Amino acid sequence: MEYEVKIRVARLEPLRARLASLGIRPASSLTERDLYFNSPVHDFGRTDEALRIRTTGEGTSLTYKGPKQGLGGIKAREEIIAGVGPDGAMEEILERLGFTRTAMVEKARETYLVDGASVALDEVKGLGSFVEIEAPRGMGAREAVELIARVRGILGVEGEETTLSYLEMILARR
Amino acid sequence: MEYEVKIRVARLEPLRARLASLGIRPASSLTERDLYFNSPVHDFGRTDEALRIRTTGEGTSLTYKGPKQGLGGIKAREEIIAGVGPDGAMEEILERLGFTRTAMVEKARETYLVDGASVALDEVKGLGSFVEIEAPRGMGAREAVELIARVRGILGVEGEETTLSYLEMILARR
Repeated sequence: MEYEVKIRVARLEPLRARLASLGIRPASSLTERDLYFNSPVHDFGRTDEALRIRTTGEGTSLTYKGPKQGLGGIKAREEIIAGVGPDGAMEEILERLGFTRTAMVEKARETYLVDGASVALDEVKGLGSFVEIEAPRGMGAREAVELIARVRGILGVEGEETTLSYLEMILARR
Repeated sequence: MEYEVKIRVARLEPLRARLASLGIRPASSLTERDLYFNSPVHDFGRTDEALRIRTTGEGTSLTYKGPKQGLGGIKAREEIIAGVGPDGAMEEILERLGFTRTAMVEKARETYLVDGASVALDEVKGLGSFVEIEAPRGMGAREAVELIARVRGILGVEGEETTLSYLEMILARR
C-alpha cells in the first residue's frame, strides 16, 4: 500500500528554499515520462486502476496501481512495480494483449527525504506544480497519516489537496 | 518472425556426439522455467497466442508469441521479448490484470550454433527429448526453410516433426 497526499501549489521555489534552510538536499532529480494504458477487459477509468510504463534516465518500469482508497485527503492504493528493459518491447507486448494507450504524463521531479517520508516536488507538463508527500512502504495507515501531516507542517505547504492522479487531471482536460 | 522446426527424438546423446565430431561446442547450457498465462479477453488456446515469463540462471523475460503460421512442418510466428526484473513483480501484475496461470514448462536446454542456425537440444520435464532448429532473425522464409533443412541434414536428425509447442503438449496430457 502507498499512503500519500498531493497538493497543488502556485510555485515550488519557496519549498526548495525551505528544504535548503533545513539542510535537506534533493535525493534525486529526474524527468519521468509515463505512458498509460487501458485494459481491454474493464475500463480502468471506472475500476480506478492504472497501468503505466515509466521511463526515466535511470531505467524503465511497468507499474500496476489498484483502486484508490480515500483516507481524508490521503490516497492509499496497491502498487506493484516491475523493472523492464528499455527497448520498447513491453509497450509492444501490451498492445498485442489488447491494452490501448490512453495518455502520456511528463514531469520533472525532485525527491527529498524528510523525517522518513518521501517528498516530491513535481513540475507537470500542462498541469502545473505539485508537492507529493508519501509515507514509507510497510507503514500502517494511522502512522502514515500522522507522518504526512507532520512533514506537511515542517515544510509549511499551503494549497489545495487532491486525490486525483496526474493522469486523471490530463484526461479531465480533454 | 521466428522460423523453426521441432523434432521429437529418442535420445539426445547421438546428436551431442555428432556435434562434438564436427567440432561444435555448446554456446550455452541452461535450465528454463516457463510460466504460461492465459488472457481474460480471448482464450490463447483458440487464438494460438502465448504469453510466458521465462526464468533462467541468466535472467527473466516476458515473451508474447503471435499465432503460428505453418510452413511445411516449419513454424513461423511473431515473438516479442521484454526483459523484466527477477522479483516476481511481473507475475503479480499479470494476475492483477486478469491473466491466469495455465501451466509450467521446465526444460534443460543446450544451444549450439550450426551454419548460422540455432540448434537446441531440449530435455523437457514430463515430455522427453527434442531438437529445435531455428533460423536467425531477419532471414526470409525461403532462405530459412533451406537453412533448416540443410542443418537437419548435417546433424542427421531422425524423428517426427511437430508444430506443437511444449505448452500445447503439456496441456494435451491433462
